Amino acid sequence: MFISLEGIDGSGKSTQARMLADALRAEGREVVLTREPGGSPGAEEIRHLLVDGRADRWSAETELLLFTAARRDHLERTVRPALDRGAWVVTDRFADSTRVYQGATRGDLRGRVDALHRLMIGVEPDRTLVIDLDPAEALARTTRRHAAPATAAPEDRFETMGLPFQTRLRAGFAALASAHPDRIRLIDGRGSAEDVAARVRAAL
Amino acid sequence: MFISLEGIDGSGKSTQARMLADALRAEGREVVLTREPGGSPGAEEIRHLLVDGRADRWSAETELLLFTAARRDHLERTVRPALDRGAWVVTDRFADSTRVYQGATRGDLRGRVDALHRLMIGVEPDRTLVIDLDPAEALARTTRRHAAPATAAPEDRFETMGLPFQTRLRAGFAALASAHPDRIRLIDGRGSAEDVAARVRAAL
Ligand SMILES: Nc1ncnc2c1ncn2[C@@H]1O[C@H](COP(=O)(O)OP(=O)(O)OP(=O)(O)O)[C@@H](O)[C@H]1O
Ligand SMILES: Nc1ncnc2c1ncn2[C@@H]1O[C@H](COP(=O)(O)OP(=O)(O)OP(=O)(O)O)[C@@H](O)[C@H]1O
Ligand SMILES: [Mg+2]
Ligand SMILES: [Mg+2]
Repeated sequence: MFISLEGIDGSGKSTQARMLADALRAEGREVVLTREPGGSPGAEEIRHLLVDGRADRWSAETELLLFTAARRDHLERTVRPALDRGAWVVTDRFADSTRVYQGATRGDLRGRVDALHRLMIGVEPDRTLVIDLDPAEALARTTRRHAAPATAAPEDRFETMGLPFQTRLRAGFAALASAHPDRIRLIDGRGSAEDVAARVRAAL
Repeated sequence: MFISLEGIDGSGKSTQARMLADALRAEGREVVLTREPGGSPGAEEIRHLLVDGRADRWSAETELLLFTAARRDHLERTVRPALDRGAWVVTDRFADSTRVYQGATRGDLRGRVDALHRLMIGVEPDRTLVIDLDPAEALARTTRRHAAPATAAPEDRFETMGLPFQTRLRAGFAALASAHPDRIRLIDGRGSAEDVAARVRAAL
C-alpha cells in the first residue's frame, strides 16, 4: 500500500505520517516513511533548490519542473523499490500538494500540472488522507513550533504567504477529495494528535 | 535573432559561439553569449546537479526534467529579456541537444522529450548551426584540451561515453537538420576555427 498525507501548512501531516508509520510497524509491517519534496538523496538536493532562498527565485513553471524532477527521483529510488519488496510506503505529501499549491498560486497552470504528471509520473497513491484544519488553528500550531528555537525551520518560503492563501489551499484539497472520493479522504484535524491518528486509522 | 550552436562533444560549439558573438559585436550589435545547461544563476545551479557526480546519478527521465527546468529558467531570465530589448542571443546548445542526446541514449523517450518541450518551453531558436565533425577528430581535439591541466574540466559525465555514442549523436543532429531545413544548418566543422567561423557567417 502506498499512502500519502496531505493538507495545508501546519495541519499535522508530519505528525500523522509518523504516527501512522509507527502503528503499522506495531502490526508487524515493514513501513518506509518518506516525504516530498525529497525522500531520496537526489530529490533532497533538488529540495534545497526549492525551499532555500527568495520566494521569487524560480517562476511557477520552473518550480513545477523541479518538483516533478524530485518526485520522479523519489518514486524511482525510494517508493517503487519499497513497494516492490512488499513494504508499505507512507509519504508526507505527494502530487496532490503540487496540484493544490499551483492551483492556489497560478490557477492557469493546473492543466499543465496534470499533463506533466501524466507524462512523467503517472502514479497515484492507493489512499490519500487530507488532514483538514482551519488555517488559523494550523498557523497557531506552526507559530508555537517556530517560537521554539531548537526546531525553528529555515524552510519557510511556503509558510509566509498568510491566511488567505492557506484558505485557498484548504478549499483546493477539499475540491480534490470530492473529485477523487475513492482515493482521497478528508480527515478532521482538530483535537489531540491521538484523536486525529484514530480518525486516520479508522479511514484506512 | 536567437541563434543556437549545436553538435557533438568537442566539435567546436563553444569556440564558434564565441567567434560569432565577437563578429556580431564588431558589426555594432548587442549580443548576449550564453550556454546550456546553465545561462542564468538558477540554471547554473541546476547544471551542477546534472554534470557533477556519477553517470547513474539520475535516471534519463529525471535528467530530462532537470534539463527542462534549467532551460525554462534560462529562457525566462536570460534569453527572453535580451530578445525583448533587441539584443541578439547566441547560445552554446539549446533544446536540440536534449532531443539528440536522449534519442541516442533512450530512444523510447523521444516522444516525451517533444511533449515536454511543447508543454513547458515552446520556443525554438530562429537559426540553429550544427557544427558537424567526425567524432574521432572531435575526440582528438578534446583530448588535447584535457591534457592541459589548466583547462581540464571535471564535467565529463557526457564525454566518457566513447566513439560509438558520439557517432549516434552525429547522426541524430544530421537527422534533425533534415527534418527542419528552414531552421537548422549543418556546418562543416573541419579545418581551422577561422575556416569554420567563415562557414557559420556564410550560413547566417
Ligand atoms: N493534533 C495536534 N494538536 C496540537 N498540535 C499539533 C497536533 N498535531 C501536530 N501538532 C503540532 O503542530 C505543529 C505542526 O504539525 P506538523 O509538523 O505535523 O504539521 P505539518 O502539516 O507537517 O506542517 P508543515 O506543513 O509545516 O510540514 C507541530 O509543532 C506539531 O507538533
Ligand atoms: N577548428 C578547430 N580546429 C582545431 N581545434 C579546435 C577547433 N575548434 C575548436 N578547437 C579546439 O577543440 C577543443 C573543443 O572545442 P570547443 O570547446 O569549442 O568544442 P565544444 O563543442 O564546445 O566542446 P564541448 O562539447 O566539450 O563543450 C578546444 O580545445 C578548442 O580549442
Ligand atoms: Mg511537515
Ligand atoms: Mg563547449
